[in-house]
Amino acid sequence: MPEKPAVSRRSVLGGALAGGAAAAGVGAGVMGAAAPPALAADGAPPAAAAGWRPRRPGQKSMIGVPYEPHRTVRVAIIGLGQRGSSMTTGWSVVPGSVVTAVCDIRTERAERTADRLVAAGKPRPAVYGGDAGAHRRMLRRDDVDLVYIATPWEFHHRQGRDALLAGKHALVELPVATELHELWDLVDTSERTRRHLFLAENCSYGRNELAMLKMAHEGLFGDVTNGHGGYLHDLRALLFSDTYYTDSWRRLWHTRSTASLYPMHGLAPIAAAMDVNRGDRMTTLRATATEARGLADYRARHIPRSHPSWRETYVNGDLITCLIDTHQGRVIRAEHDVSSPRPYSRINSLAGTRGIFEDYAGTSRTGGRVYLEPDHTDHRWRDFERLRAEFDHWLWRKVGDDAANNGGHGGMDYILQWRTVQQMRAGLVPDIDVYDSAAWCAPIPLSAASLRAGGRPVPFPDFTRGSWVNKRPGLDSRPSDMPAAATR
Amino acid sequence: MPEKPAVSRRSVLGGALAGGAAAAGVGAGVMGAAAPPALAADGAPPAAAAGWRPRRPGQKSMIGVPYEPHRTVRVAIIGLGQRGSSMTTGWSVVPGSVVTAVCDIRTERAERTADRLVAAGKPRPAVYGGDAGAHRRMLRRDDVDLVYIATPWEFHHRQGRDALLAGKHALVELPVATELHELWDLVDTSERTRRHLFLAENCSYGRNELAMLKMAHEGLFGDVTNGHGGYLHDLRALLFSDTYYTDSWRRLWHTRSTASLYPMHGLAPIAAAMDVNRGDRMTTLRATATEARGLADYRARHIPRSHPSWRETYVNGDLITCLIDTHQGRVIRAEHDVSSPRPYSRINSLAGTRGIFEDYAGTSRTGGRVYLEPDHTDHRWRDFERLRAEFDHWLWRKVGDDAANNGGHGGMDYILQWRTVQQMRAGLVPDIDVYDSAAWCAPIPLSAASLRAGGRPVPFPDFTRGSWVNKRPGLDSRPSDMPAAATR
Repeated sequence: MPEKPAVSRRSVLGGALAGGAAAAGVGAGVMGAAAPPALAADGAPPAAAAGWRPRRPGQKSMIGVPYEPHRTVRVAIIGLGQRGSSMTTGWSVVPGSVVTAVCDIRTERAERTADRLVAAGKPRPAVYGGDAGAHRRMLRRDDVDLVYIATPWEFHHRQGRDALLAGKHALVELPVATELHELWDLVDTSERTRRHLFLAENCSYGRNELAMLKMAHEGLFGDVTNGHGGYLHDLRALLFSDTYYTDSWRRLWHTRSTASLYPMHGLAPIAAAMDVNRGDRMTTLRATATEARGLADYRARHIPRSHPSWRETYVNGDLITCLIDTHQGRVIRAEHDVSSPRPYSRINSLAGTRGIFEDYAGTSRTGGRVYLEPDHTDHRWRDFERLRAEFDHWLWRKVGDDAANNGGHGGMDYILQWRTVQQMRAGLVPDIDVYDSAAWCAPIPLSAASLRAGGRPVPFPDFTRGSWVNKRPGLDSRPSDMPAAATR
Repeated sequence: MPEKPAVSRRSVLGGALAGGAAAAGVGAGVMGAAAPPALAADGAPPAAAAGWRPRRPGQKSMIGVPYEPHRTVRVAIIGLGQRGSSMTTGWSVVPGSVVTAVCDIRTERAERTADRLVAAGKPRPAVYGGDAGAHRRMLRRDDVDLVYIATPWEFHHRQGRDALLAGKHALVELPVATELHELWDLVDTSERTRRHLFLAENCSYGRNELAMLKMAHEGLFGDVTNGHGGYLHDLRALLFSDTYYTDSWRRLWHTRSTASLYPMHGLAPIAAAMDVNRGDRMTTLRATATEARGLADYRARHIPRSHPSWRETYVNGDLITCLIDTHQGRVIRAEHDVSSPRPYSRINSLAGTRGIFEDYAGTSRTGGRVYLEPDHTDHRWRDFERLRAEFDHWLWRKVGDDAANNGGHGGMDYILQWRTVQQMRAGLVPDIDVYDSAAWCAPIPLSAASLRAGGRPVPFPDFTRGSWVNKRPGLDSRPSDMPAAATR
């Protein structure tokens, strides 16, 4: 597996992250790098993404492999910026979970997090930091069952891999990796180490998304023919903030990559409703991109000339659209736009021969609207309220209130954390596995490849190596799948 | 120009249209035809659609060419089915317009229309019909200035061409043609005959669409980067009706073509807001299609086994999505779905660096919502009501009430008819020309070519032959463009 680019990229940025003063230098360094980062540099022809490679000796599928049961799930956290520290609360309050170690290259952040947990009456976690290798020292501990990774994107693959090689399960923030060879490496490493690695795809646990999934599986949409998802989030103010994204790491991606950088929140729930990797699979992807205008336009109006961002050139299109075909003849549209002014939306719509659901378009607190035959025949939308109540997922009925109190993003974060911990305690099969995670992140390198080829369709890899044909449980579980003991 | 397919197709269906008894036979005949109709048969490689062909001697551009002034505009109508007869009212009541001749291959329909006009106190138009050549006899009249064509799609190209060759201007229902060579032929014939032919794109005169256009031109969206349009209309009941579409002509298209059959209503207003053919142009198109499931599913639930439709196989995907790139780096998405259950939508959204408009998602009677900087900074939608009033197009202010009383489709039909007649009286340049019409219809054959090539991008022809670079007026007119005399 050619990991040179990942390593060098990591050391470059890792070094920079070690010192705030070097931050500006990094920006310039990254932009001026002879070998720009991977999405742009990846010379692999689209064909290289086709099909799947045979398993190497000593590897077995992780599909259907349960966790070993845990009395208590001991969680270690890598990365304590905005995301990592906000998720720490959930990990410390979910029943059966304890935070045993925290790590950030800026040790003071890890210390602050430890202090905060103690102040909340929790045991003090061990603290690691100071250099780019700190997380590896933490991974040597034997009181860690699950590693939660919330660092900048460029570190996810390597740190997730390190966690697996250390014998831990790993829950990785979006994306698990940004290159096809990295995604395959995580699949191979998970199969080799017999440890689970999966994407922290909180939106797949969204209340509307889970109700939509149950409705799809109960046939309310008839044969599902298409679905639309997106990550349409005006991040301009945060991207230009000097404090929100450490060293402006997220803005820098827009200086070096033309790709759908973050399609997973919109794509994953649609893929789940279509049983991708559970009876269907994504076969081809084609992408289009608008010109990159939004960030420069925002900078011109709001950012002082003295700001380092004025040395940057933004190359990623404002709206990147991926059209994905599935083996069963369905179509998924996944959009990405974080640089245009607009209210937030993940689109989240699903349609078939008997009906349609559209999110972010309704008037009730659910934000959704539906039209379903045979009940609806007058060509007029119905509010989603009643159907969402009827198809409300048991996870929300059981811990929805705790979620609202303890978690961000409307409770999706807590539901993800609660479900993960209880599945590990009960020794169940995870709802989301490494194959789902790789498939949901693959549009990042695939969109880059399609755009480099003028929008040509590129083949979608089959990370399951043919096992996608088998029906199997996923996100729409039943409470009966979970021993009562594990849900206390 | 190879017109054989068009001719043979026309004679086949034309013959059938002559007799109701032959209808069922037609269905079978068309389906069983050795050479299936053009979208499927057109073997032309995508490359053949590229760029433009040089003008032949004796041709000049029709861009900016005004009508000769008319005291009264004398209208002849071809095709008096659902659409033709409903539009007849408008042609008979618009100031300065008179219907002098009507034609339908079923003469009784033409007679009924003539009787209806007389009953309404209008002069009796001459009546033509009885055979597929009847419209040509009508075109020999010297009391016809404008020919309005509302026959089934397969006759539009030939009948529009006949009107031009007879020295008349032609307003053609959607689409003006379904093949690239036919679209080029209409451009060439218009340039040769110095007569205008254009698409009856009523939705381009929609009240929301025109307000959106004015807002775009006044810069409220900043640099426009993308727009979405669609024709999402659940036509299943009408497609299977034995009376609505004569001889089920529209359903039969779904048995022989895999293409975006009717994208113009959604595409045209977005193209207008992006100044396509007036400073920008569409350069490439790629399409995706779902499986064809909706019509068969509907038939299984609602159509008796004895119905002729049970001998049909539907091949056109339920949702066809076209992604179109423009020279200025914008992206247009155009969707088509007439075979799935859902409330009506043309999507109609436009976005740029300073704001966004979304139609069919709001709560007020306008159905639209907006978010525009610098006024809006809280990531929350605003209702379109106030802005639509502020940017209401003068055509709606002037004749909106008459439109509501005299026209279908919320008044768009009457606005189109009123504007066309007044421009001809005043001797002005038409808002929509043959180049716009050809560009808006080109996605039909281009989507077919892209889908045949597995969703590959195909080049978009430049029907203006390079003149798209020049800014020029279009739908966004001002009342001052029109002499007061002509608007009485």
